[in-house]
Order: sequence, then C-alpha cells, then structure tokens
Amino acid sequence: MRTQVAIIGGGPSGLLLSQLLHRRGIDTVVLERKTRDYVLGRIRAGILETGFVELMREAGVGTRMDAESFTHEGTVIAYGDEEFGINFREHTGTDVIVYGQTELTRDLYDAREAEDGKIVFNVENVVINDAETEAPYVSYTVDGVEQRLDCDFVAGCDGFHGVSRQTIPLTVRREYEKVYPFGWLGILSETPPVHDELIYSWSERGFALCSMRNANLSRYYIQCSLSDSPEDWSDENFWEELKRRIPARHAEKLVTGPSIEKSIAPLRSFVTEPMRWGRLFLCGDAAHIVPPTGAKGLNTAASDIHYLYHGLVQFFEEGDSEGIDRYSEKALARIWKAERFSWATTNLLHRYPDQSEFDLKMQRAEIDFLRSNESAQKVFAENYVGLPY
Amino acid sequence: MRTQVAIIGGGPSGLLLSQLLHRRGIDTVVLERKTRDYVLGRIRAGILETGFVELMREAGVGTRMDAESFTHEGTVIAYGDEEFGINFREHTGTDVIVYGQTELTRDLYDAREAEDGKIVFNVENVVINDAETEAPYVSYTVDGVEQRLDCDFVAGCDGFHGVSRQTIPLTVRREYEKVYPFGWLGILSETPPVHDELIYSWSERGFALCSMRNANLSRYYIQCSLSDSPEDWSDENFWEELKRRIPARHAEKLVTGPSIEKSIAPLRSFVTEPMRWGRLFLCGDAAHIVPPTGAKGLNTAASDIHYLYHGLVQFFEEGDSEGIDRYSEKALARIWKAERFSWATTNLLHRYPDQSEFDLKMQRAEIDFLRSNESAQKVFAENYVGLPY
Repeated sequence: MRTQVAIIGGGPSGLLLSQLLHRRGIDTVVLERKTRDYVLGRIRAGILETGFVELMREAGVGTRMDAESFTHEGTVIAYGDEEFGINFREHTGTDVIVYGQTELTRDLYDAREAEDGKIVFNVENVVINDAETEAPYVSYTVDGVEQRLDCDFVAGCDGFHGVSRQTIPLTVRREYEKVYPFGWLGILSETPPVHDELIYSWSERGFALCSMRNANLSRYYIQCSLSDSPEDWSDENFWEELKRRIPARHAEKLVTGPSIEKSIAPLRSFVTEPMRWGRLFLCGDAAHIVPPTGAKGLNTAASDIHYLYHGLVQFFEEGDSEGIDRYSEKALARIWKAERFSWATTNLLHRYPDQSEFDLKMQRAEIDFLRSNESAQKVFAENYVGLPY
Repeated sequence: MRTQVAIIGGGPSGLLLSQLLHRRGIDTVVLERKTRDYVLGRIRAGILETGFVELMREAGVGTRMDAESFTHEGTVIAYGDEEFGINFREHTGTDVIVYGQTELTRDLYDAREAEDGKIVFNVENVVINDAETEAPYVSYTVDGVEQRLDCDFVAGCDGFHGVSRQTIPLTVRREYEKVYPFGWLGILSETPPVHDELIYSWSERGFALCSMRNANLSRYYIQCSLSDSPEDWSDENFWEELKRRIPARHAEKLVTGPSIEKSIAPLRSFVTEPMRWGRLFLCGDAAHIVPPTGAKGLNTAASDIHYLYHGLVQFFEEGDSEGIDRYSEKALARIWKAERFSWATTNLLHRYPDQSEFDLKMQRAEIDFLRSNESAQKVFAENYVGLPY
C-alpha cells in the first residue's frame, strides 16, 4: 500500500490531520493499534481553545460541535471558601469551548468514514522504517499478517507510549521530564455540573477541579496520592472529599450520583526535542505531555496539527519545504509556553508533600495577587484561551 | 526621658518615620546601636519606588534626591547574549528612581539634626518593656549608664537582628523563611555604569546584575556560592566572571576598576506575623527580608513606614486607632506581594544546585514568555515600580 502521509495513531490528532489533509487532496492512511470503540471509550479532555475550534471547522467537522458545545467566558479560582472569577472574554476578546474529546473524536471518525478515509484498526508491531530517507515506509501486522505502507511522510500521533518517538535515535533525541508527586482521581457522573464554569480549587486538603462535559454530565477531580487506586475510593468517599475541597456555597448544592467512570491519572510534564526527524513528525502526546491543570493537553496536540498541516500543504501544493523544515521549531516554541502555563498552574494549586510554611504562603500570595491584579488575570486568560499560533 | 514614639534603629526606616512624625508635631526619640558614620558606611539598595519618593518629599527631605537622583523608565532582562527591555513608564505610567540608600540616609540625618531631632547613638542592652500595656518603655544603656525612655508607642526599625521582633513572644509570633542556596558577591567601583538601566542577567554560570548609584559609581553583583568569601575573589576575577555572565555587547564595553567595597550577601525570604504586638510595631527588616532580586528591600520598609505614619497621625490627631489597629494586616498584605515578586524573580534568574534539565527549560520558557507577552511585562513592571499602597 502507498500513501502520501502515513499517520500512526487514530486518536483525535491523527484523525484531525487526516481529515484536514484529505480536504486538500492529500492522501493519508491512519494506523490504529486498537478499535474505534476502544478509542471512543477513552474519557479525556473537554476544553477547546478557539484555535482548535477553528481547525475543526476548517476540517469540515464543526457542525455538531457548534450545535452542541457550550462556551465558557471565564473560570473560577477558589481557595478555602473564597473564590473569584477570571473572565476570558473581557481580557482576551475570546473564550473556550466545552466539548468532550469523545464527541470530537466521534465526529472525526464519522467524517473520515463518510469520505472513505483509510483507517486500519488493530495494527500490531508497527515499525517506522527509513524515516531519515526520502522513501520512508511503515511495516506492521494485522491478524498476524505482515503489511507495508510506503509513504512520503510519517506523522507520529501515537501518544506517549507509542513507537514514533522511540524511532528517533537517542543520539538525536533529548527528553525533558518532571513527574509530580501526586495524581488526579477523576470521576464522570450523570449529574448536572455544580457550576456553569469550571472551578479550580486550592484547598488545604489538596486540589479539586469541578468540570463538565455537558448539562447532565459532570467531571470532577481531586488530587490524590500516587499510591491510591480507584478501588480505594467509594463514590461516597469521593463526593465527601470533593465537598471538603470546594467553597461551602458550591459544596452545599453539589448534586451527587453514581460514577460511570473512575480513574487515577498521574501528572507529568514531558517534552521531547526535536519533534521532527527526517520525514517523521511527532504530534501531540507522542512528543509532549502536560499536567491537566489548565486543560492544555488536547490543545497542544491541535497546535502541532496546525503547524504540520500547513507545512504539508505548503510542501505538496507549492513544493516548498519551509513549513515542514521549521515544524519542530515552531511547534516547540508554542509547546514550551503551554508547558510553562500548565506547570505554573499545577504549582499554584496543588499541595506538595515537601511544602514549607513559606511555600504555602507563596501559593497564597500568588492567588491573592491573581485575584487583585488585572494584568495577572490577563496573563492567565491569554494562556488559558491559547496563545496565538 | 519621655516621648510619644520611641523608634528603635537609626537606619532609613527609623529616620524617615521620625522625620515624618516630627512634621506633624509628634515627638520621637531614635535609639541607634551604632554611630551615624557607621550607619552611613553601609552600602545598600539604590532603587526607589515612586511611593517611597513621595514619602521622602512629604518628609521634607526630597530636595537633594530630586536634584541628584536619576530616573529609570525601564530595565533590561538578559539571558546568554540575548536581551530585551521592559519599559515601566509605558506599562504603568511611572518609573523608579536611582538614589543610594547612603545618600537618602544622609539627607534624613541632616534633616533630623537641623530640626534638633533626638537621636541617641551607641545605645546598648535595649529592652522593650510592657509593650502589651498602654505605658510601654524602653530601657537601654549608653556608656554603661542605664536609661529609660517612656513612650506611647514603640516602632521597631532595628533590622533583622534587632531586639524588636524578639520582644514578641513566640506564642504570638509566627515566622516564615526561605534561605536560598547561593549568595550575591557585590562590588562598588568608581567607574561609569556599563548601561544606563539595570541589567538583570540569567546565565548558565549564574545570575549577574549590573546596577549603579550614579554616573561614576557602579554596583555589580554575581551569584556566588555560600561557601565563598570576598577574599576568594580578586577584583580581576570578579570582572572576568561578570563579563562571562552578561551579553557580549555589554561585556565588551564594561569599564573596570578597583573595587571600593566588596562583600557577599546571603539571600533570604523572611516574614514575621503579626507586625504589631500591643504598642510595638515592627517595620522593615525587623519584620521581613526579601532577596535583593527586584530591589524591594528598602521599598518594603518604606511601605511599612507609610502605613505606620498614617496610623499614628490618625491616632494622635483624631484619636482614632483604626490605622494602628489595622497596621499589621495592611502592611502584611503588601509585604506578601513584594515577597512573592522577589521570590519569583529570584527563581526566574538564578541557577539552583538541584535544577533538572526540565527546570532549566521552565526558566527559559518563563523568560521567553516575559519577552513575548505584553501582559506579562505589565505584571513585571507593576510589581517593579511598586504596587499601590
């Protein structure tokens, strides 16, 4: 089999790239390790930057998103029983969109399938070959049968544990990482959200986040120990702990119910450099991870897709390699800023095991400063809605 | 002897408070452990916030400052051979003043002496008595002779190592501290400053600061090990190391010369709470220390003096204790913000012994973000020129 762009990974990054390129007449094949249902079963992010929303529209998959998503003009920062809002619209003229990754991925699958996009599921033993030449190819097996996909370029959209990053030799690749000494215990429940905006809550007992997917689907998180497992937390215990970590006025009206998903995610900051090696490009989690505080994970993937899409179009339509040659540099410049925001916001709102009393006072001073200073709120808002591409 | 306000410490805080109160007809006595010449021999800060400048004028000691100081409309942030400016005036409408602490203290002494202000030098064995009553008094000795100063209030302006803070019982007092794992080696030299604004310079070899007192008096600092002593550093070695830590275009035109002062200061963040105990008020270094990055030390002292001065005037002129009752709360609210800025700016620009490659990337991302984001520059500028009283 031959294609112009082999895309490793059928998550939102790979599908979005495939869909965008398809509409410009560039042929792609997507190789996915799991099934469509498996991919759609993953509960992930739900806050989209405007840049991402525009990319979805450009890909022709914005109709349901525009109809069913809702807009958040701001967010709430709480500490103890205190809270204040940061208004994105006022500070930046834009806002963010709430639309679950599951929904967005479903829209992308529907579009790819409606247009006979080539997606191969259940691929195993993926190897990216000759990426440093002008004739790379991907070998893999399906049901034990060896396959070969020849291509001009490979887009590695296969996540943190995928093979794409590992394909880049260690003599070239440089990795930067920070592992945080806590996790997030998250639940999904079919209850109305406690508030119409997200609440990021600092508490003496640890961070909590009140989020949502839609008017009857809430997503809540609490900072937990890395040694905890989801089975350690009954729904009742989760709700009780959440209530202790958010302002009383919200806790009082929190509607609880059975969890339909419960899991613990570790928090990690990770970046690999470079993001291009020969004709292989890394996108999204394959190249970088942010802690979820500040909702940058899916949005940083979209940022990569933006740069790669435009670079590939420039190459195939104009024969100009400037965009792909500068892909790594451009993508990383924006990624590091998102890493900075996610790291700083995580530091601001979480309890750390080794925090001194002075460190706690600094957290409080940072929150007080953010509350009282318009320019600091503008900085937060600009980062939250997404820095310019 | 009896006075209305006994002021412990004849540094700039104590003298400024004395001078301000004198002009409102409130009697003070200043007790100083050393001599006037000793106090004037201390080389300290040189960057004044506008609020401080206005307080000096209100105290009637602004004439020479206004004639001889110069204005900095911005500052330079450098990293490696890169640099950018942050313009205070553009972002805040105001700027900062360069006028050495030595000069300012001299003006205050001259003013106090011209108006027969009572300043007792060489006091020893100072004890603040009955501060929790309405009739406090200070006992001390001069030349071995015991003395007693009765007063309505005591202002503790005697610095970090003074007795005032220690007078507050440990059952009441709470202290917050961070000691940084490095010091600043500073020299003063009679050479023209390398640049007309301050240069705050991040370098792989450690932080450097190019500062000045006037057109022919430069003040330079380099981050050094806490185990270094000034004797370890010849002037030549200092200049060579400084040149390695600032952009080449500045290093090339740096005018060097013999140091007329050379010393190492440890870096510390420290705050004690509360800043009032009964009729004793702590001001300046007696209550809090900032690392010098960002030039907040003397300015936080001025902020305390502002609140205490207005509180005491309100008490003596109107019989209203609201200002002094809220002194600790008001002073601390501003102090913690200055502590935050000094801590964050120190973290931004220094090398830490335990920095990971990721931590270094975060420093660089913070600097890049500050360079590229107007709102972040505004936040920096607002903090640098001084948040509102």
